[in-house]
Amino acid sequence: MAGSASIPSTPFLKDELDIVIPTIRNLDFLEMWRPYFQPYHLIIVQDGDPSKTIKVPEGFDYELYNRNDINRILGPKASCISFKDSACRCFGYMVSKKKYIFTIDDDCFVAKDPSGKEINALEQHIKNLLAPSTPFFFNTLYDPFREGVDFVRGYPFSLREGVATAVSHGLWLNIPDYDAPTQLVKPRERNTRYVDAVLTIPKGTLFPMCGMNLAFDRELIGPAMYFGLMGDGQPIGRYDDMWAGWCTKVICDHLGLGVKTGLPYIWHSKASNPFVNLKKEYNGIFWQEELIPFFQSAVLSKDCTTVQKCYIELSKQVREKLGKIDPYFNKLADAMVTWIEAWDELNPSGAAAEKPNGTAK
Amino acid sequence: MAGSASIPSTPFLKDELDIVIPTIRNLDFLEMWRPYFQPYHLIIVQDGDPSKTIKVPEGFDYELYNRNDINRILGPKASCISFKDSACRCFGYMVSKKKYIFTIDDDCFVAKDPSGKEINALEQHIKNLLAPSTPFFFNTLYDPFREGVDFVRGYPFSLREGVATAVSHGLWLNIPDYDAPTQLVKPRERNTRYVDAVLTIPKGTLFPMCGMNLAFDRELIGPAMYFGLMGDGQPIGRYDDMWAGWCTKVICDHLGLGVKTGLPYIWHSKASNPFVNLKKEYNGIFWQEELIPFFQSAVLSKDCTTVQKCYIELSKQVREKLGKIDPYFNKLADAMVTWIEAWDELNPSGAAAEKPNGTAK
Repeated sequence: MAGSASIPSTPFLKDELDIVIPTIRNLDFLEMWRPYFQPYHLIIVQDGDPSKTIKVPEGFDYELYNRNDINRILGPKASCISFKDSACRCFGYMVSKKKYIFTIDDDCFVAKDPSGKEINALEQHIKNLLAPSTPFFFNTLYDPFREGVDFVRGYPFSLREGVATAVSHGLWLNIPDYDAPTQLVKPRERNTRYVDAVLTIPKGTLFPMCGMNLAFDRELIGPAMYFGLMGDGQPIGRYDDMWAGWCTKVICDHLGLGVKTGLPYIWHSKASNPFVNLKKEYNGIFWQEELIPFFQSAVLSKDCTTVQKCYIELSKQVREKLGKIDPYFNKLADAMVTWIEAWDELNPSGAAAEKPNGTAK
Repeated sequence: MAGSASIPSTPFLKDELDIVIPTIRNLDFLEMWRPYFQPYHLIIVQDGDPSKTIKVPEGFDYELYNRNDINRILGPKASCISFKDSACRCFGYMVSKKKYIFTIDDDCFVAKDPSGKEINALEQHIKNLLAPSTPFFFNTLYDPFREGVDFVRGYPFSLREGVATAVSHGLWLNIPDYDAPTQLVKPRERNTRYVDAVLTIPKGTLFPMCGMNLAFDRELIGPAMYFGLMGDGQPIGRYDDMWAGWCTKVICDHLGLGVKTGLPYIWHSKASNPFVNLKKEYNGIFWQEELIPFFQSAVLSKDCTTVQKCYIELSKQVREKLGKIDPYFNKLADAMVTWIEAWDELNPSGAAAEKPNGTAK
């Protein structure tokens, strides 16, 4: 049950899940997560100056990649990985060999439920991923697979088996994930409402996927989780997770996979600078007005039977339909292709398989 | 704010809202609702034996219609109003002259929020109806128009104005609204989870609309709120609200109107008999497997610019595509047309208006 925070004696999926953390600083925030994260393997993607040493608290099992490592491992294909932007985190998804990924920002702490209990965010994400999704019809009592609840009257029986869940999108107490204009207008707004629900985002509906507190099934959807070209040398930032979310949702809808949002909450400790954010976002604010209709109307052909094929097909549509908005989208379409090439290079077994199962090792 | 139950000194929309209650028994349940409902006008639709006298607690302002009244008022068109089934409630929607309707079952009581405060369900419904809906894109922090929350990063600015809300679907603590098979399998399951959220059901997504705790804007969507042919002489029961919900959602999507679900909760006191329910439902359980794909793929033509036109168009599609499932659907298609004729007869101003505004009086 959500809200029943606990430190399981045998951590769920200990050997099947990596925690990916992009950072530019010492990872003191891990101290608070120690009881929950220590059993798992961490993949730390160091952004910015590679000569800087990132301190990781003792006792954690981790691998760390800085820009030099990324360049060495990917060679010329490293161009698809953003620099000076947390979009670089998707490199961690690529080098992982696990079935599941949980990614979290280093300014996110353990939240408490209304009873004052610490929330084991990772445990809730795993529950979300292991239970089916229901994208074809809305259940008014929310997640029908949760204890104490079921499908309500009028829910077609043929749809009650659900589909595999590919993505679990968690939320944030304290600092909400607002854009720069909203931050500027409502500098003091804090999210204090704990909504005790998990729900499937219906098929055909897009949502703003935030990368702050996110888990997914790498085997089911990994290659779609590309965080795009952001930051250094790019005309846009803070749309990395949004881009990944829109692509992922279109591909999940096409492949019949589920996307959930809601629990678990983390405590988002501090708001980023809205002036800096506005500078990063302003192109995105314009462009998203055309991106949303693009993704809402995107149709993938029947040949697209793997995430990779879907993603390559989407990259063609990006070039064709978004290239005219700005040359940036041609560059992005190229990077999408490079990303898939790099993914398949690092994940040779997954590249061939139509239907991945078992672990990717 | 939801959960902040209160008895407003000036009740919201006092002269613009009718409360519709279908019943076969004395309305003692109104005692508990007195502080909340007494300022409003009630329309009581008496089902079953018209010679029986229904007692209404003192001090309530109401009109009551039994079967003889329905037959007298509608003449031969009374055939579209169900008998011996709570589907008869939709007669109340038709005779109302108000802009808003709230309908509630007589086994529903005042619920309490987690802080122990009584929930003013009607007040929350009114809030839901007066604030816009957001059917085109999902907001991960739920209703962006609620106090203390807004649209999150990545939500397109052009969609933040929202659309008018036509329907507010409330939920139930204690006895959940399960079908007979689920009741039989989980006889002791109770809904104890208070989910503190209101959300828009996205465009293109169907949901199971329950008539137990429901409010809507009669001027925006009234003629679509037909509860079908159920009960006496019909091969189906307990699908009245579902039918209305599917028709309503398709028409709201077509006309660009919003449908919300979530708060407010009422306390649903007792489960109906699952064996009796199974007898009523079993045809529906089969049929809904074809009804859902039918409604999911239903497209209304551009000429359908009013709810009435949409509904007539839908009745044609029902006859054409569902008539082959069972002759019942031909009868239902006829009744849908009769319903609209009766509606327009009783609501002459609304019949002509393309875009109703102001009150219908």
